Amino acid sequence: MQVSKLGIASLLCLAGAAMAQSDEPLQPIEPAKVTNQALVDLGAKLFFDPRLSRSGFISCNSCHNLSMGGSDNLKSSIGDRWQQGPINSPTVLNSSLNLAQFWDGRAADLRAQAGGPIANPMEMAFSHELAVDMLQSIPGYVNEFKAVFGDDKLSIDEVTTAIAAFEETLVTPNSRFDKWLKGDKKAITEDELKGYQLFKESGCIACHNGPNVGGNSFQRMGLIEPYQTDNPAEGRFAVTGDDADRFNFKVPTLRNVELTYPYFHDGAADTLSQAVDTMGRLQLGKKFTEEENGLIVGFLKTLTGDQPSFVLPQLPPSSDKTVRPNPFN
Amino acid sequence: MQVSKLGIASLLCLAGAAMAQSDEPLQPIEPAKVTNQALVDLGAKLFFDPRLSRSGFISCNSCHNLSMGGSDNLKSSIGDRWQQGPINSPTVLNSSLNLAQFWDGRAADLRAQAGGPIANPMEMAFSHELAVDMLQSIPGYVNEFKAVFGDDKLSIDEVTTAIAAFEETLVTPNSRFDKWLKGDKKAITEDELKGYQLFKESGCIACHNGPNVGGNSFQRMGLIEPYQTDNPAEGRFAVTGDDADRFNFKVPTLRNVELTYPYFHDGAADTLSQAVDTMGRLQLGKKFTEEENGLIVGFLKTLTGDQPSFVLPQLPPSSDKTVRPNPFN
Ligand code: HEC
Ligand code: HEC
Ligand code: HEC
Ligand code: HEC
Ligand SMILES: [Ca+2]
Ligand SMILES: [Ca+2]
Ligand SMILES: [Ca+2]
Ligand SMILES: [Mg+2]
Repeated sequence: MQVSKLGIASLLCLAGAAMAQSDEPLQPIEPAKVTNQALVDLGAKLFFDPRLSRSGFISCNSCHNLSMGGSDNLKSSIGDRWQQGPINSPTVLNSSLNLAQFWDGRAADLRAQAGGPIANPMEMAFSHELAVDMLQSIPGYVNEFKAVFGDDKLSIDEVTTAIAAFEETLVTPNSRFDKWLKGDKKAITEDELKGYQLFKESGCIACHNGPNVGGNSFQRMGLIEPYQTDNPAEGRFAVTGDDADRFNFKVPTLRNVELTYPYFHDGAADTLSQAVDTMGRLQLGKKFTEEENGLIVGFLKTLTGDQPSFVLPQLPPSSDKTVRPNPFN
Repeated sequence: MQVSKLGIASLLCLAGAAMAQSDEPLQPIEPAKVTNQALVDLGAKLFFDPRLSRSGFISCNSCHNLSMGGSDNLKSSIGDRWQQGPINSPTVLNSSLNLAQFWDGRAADLRAQAGGPIANPMEMAFSHELAVDMLQSIPGYVNEFKAVFGDDKLSIDEVTTAIAAFEETLVTPNSRFDKWLKGDKKAITEDELKGYQLFKESGCIACHNGPNVGGNSFQRMGLIEPYQTDNPAEGRFAVTGDDADRFNFKVPTLRNVELTYPYFHDGAADTLSQAVDTMGRLQLGKKFTEEENGLIVGFLKTLTGDQPSFVLPQLPPSSDKTVRPNPFN
């Protein structure tokens, strides 16, 4: 317990260092700068294309629904053949700002991540080879890949590059809190400001800081009091094999957290109020009053930014040569 | 066989009557006129909202994907718990122009139709009551329904009214063929024009006519030669109980038919070329040459119009009171 509290203190120091630059431990995020619109548009199509799955039914957007904050709002996802996923689907919004991808950080970046679900038998249950063959059989895609990458031959690297480029545009600037950070003091209410102060003073900011209000470190879930769960995930330990990393998870971003219920890697907390209560007790040894809890929740809701706004992509049709999916065998 | 050929002859007369008005048996379609944008926007949200299903995973857009021509491009759809649907999912594009909804026409119009899938245990597997309770628990929806319908209390009628209003906007004007119909003689190629002439001369036009190039009558599948299928659907007979209606199906629209593979109520034809071949043989007793088949397919592809173009809807988040879906029990 002593050690843990020391842990928080040193984390707060780190957060303090960030504060020196900006006065605040949280920084606003900026709209994405698109340098290659054709690449982004291609990535958007791929993100929405269920033909990247064995069944022809599941796309990235099935589990990271951009109409709903970039996740599926389920405890754990529904994959190929209605298989139950092992862990809560994190939002893809602002995921480019994270230090690594997945709860355990096993993918270094968005490109490395994007190949995973296509070939994962629990998710899209396809293979990279089948995905590339499928795309290569579709003249509309072949033309677009050619325009973007310069030749007629598609590769899985090009697929993940395009998806990642699209995901990099999925940032959510202009939250009320960001407006406040930028000087518009009326952008949040007095109670929301109190919530922010409580968030800082209580020590939440030790782990949830920086532009993504999290996403920049791995931390123990259940620092002060152990977290009870049936979910077998071991967190960062699965990547490093280091016992010290057992049950360390990437600290989730709190941007748009109002939209990304249920909470925690096992999706066990249905509401933000429950999640804040659990965090207070397990990470800080604090039992918030109902009022305090409400103030923090109020502050967290100011972190909802502009959601990605784009015209629903239109996918190029399959050709006579495209292998038809058969979801039921 | 005599009778059947007489059948086609009299159908051609009917089509001829339509021709008198416009010189051609097909008419161009016009962009939707939106009189109540707020109602349409609400309908778009509902169309994309998977919370209208038991699982929280399946929306109207899952099976009528507006990125893919308004259907799912599967032989038969994937419903709740990955159940295999009984029949091919027809496109929702231009479905407002059809004389009735469903392959057997059992729903009179889009409003009557929209309640069906929500409560169908094979599809969204929810109930009207649970759907209304869910929506009623979400402040963002309550506000929108109030703005549109004038009070705080939601009803399933309001839900289906909004969905139908959105669907009425899903028309696809400006196909190259429509441009040609309107006088732009260069909008289609000479071969495409030949294909159209063959489509008329062969008798396809007897059933596929009017603004929706179909959708305006029920016709026997397998008029000249019986259709072989394992699919147990009996068509219009299921509605009327009249033996004469056995195996009569609503003639599908051929607008955007390039996008709505696979074809027929059982989804048995993977390609347009197969579907045209089957139609020639079974409906008209004609075996097209490869060249003729290609000309007709070429013409059919000129029927692809402007796809619906709108910004991906953003759904209002659930509140703490909203019952969370549990797809796995
Ligand atoms: C069947 C559900 C499902 C599908 C389909 C799916 N994902 Fe995921 N996604 C998840 C889950 C669950 C995780 C968390 C897995 C973990 O951390 O171990 C995840 C993690 C991610 C992350 C990491 C986010 C972060 O901050 O850690 C990104 C990015 C992502 N997915 C993008 C995609 C893309 C791109 C596709 C399509 C190519 C895709 N996903 C398809 C469920 C899905
Ligand atoms: C010592 C680090 C640490 C501290 C301090 C901390 N958190 Fe967390 N927070 C985490 C980690 C790690 C997770 C992910 C845990 C998991 O899912 O198993 C998390 C998850 C959350 C979530 C759920 C996010 C999601 O999308 O699932 C919320 C909300 C949250 N924290 C808010 C807070 C608040 C409010 C405080 C202060 C009362 C706080 N946190 C303090 C590390 C911390
Ligand atoms: C699980 C798949 C699935 C879901 C979800 C689904 N549909 Fe359908 N839809 C179908 C199938 C299959 C048919 C054809 C059924 C029949 O004709 O018997 C159909 C028929 C229709 C038709 C008739 C079109 C025509 O020309 O006959 C419309 C309109 C429609 N659906 C709209 C909707 C709406 C609105 C929703 C959501 C409230 C919805 N569908 C949800 C699969 C689905
Ligand atoms: C006597 C009426 C009739 C005639 C003549 C006819 N059709 Fe059809 N057509 C139908 C019916 C009914 C269906 C739906 C059958 C089913 O799905 O079981 C259909 C389906 C189709 C389909 C598949 C559409 C889809 O979305 O599934 C195509 C393509 C088509 N017809 C083209 C043609 C062509 C080309 C001709 C002329 C060679 C033709 N039809 C002649 C009645 C007719
Ligand atoms: Ca979540
Ligand atoms: Ca009402
Ligand atoms: Ca079809
Ligand atoms: Mg290449």
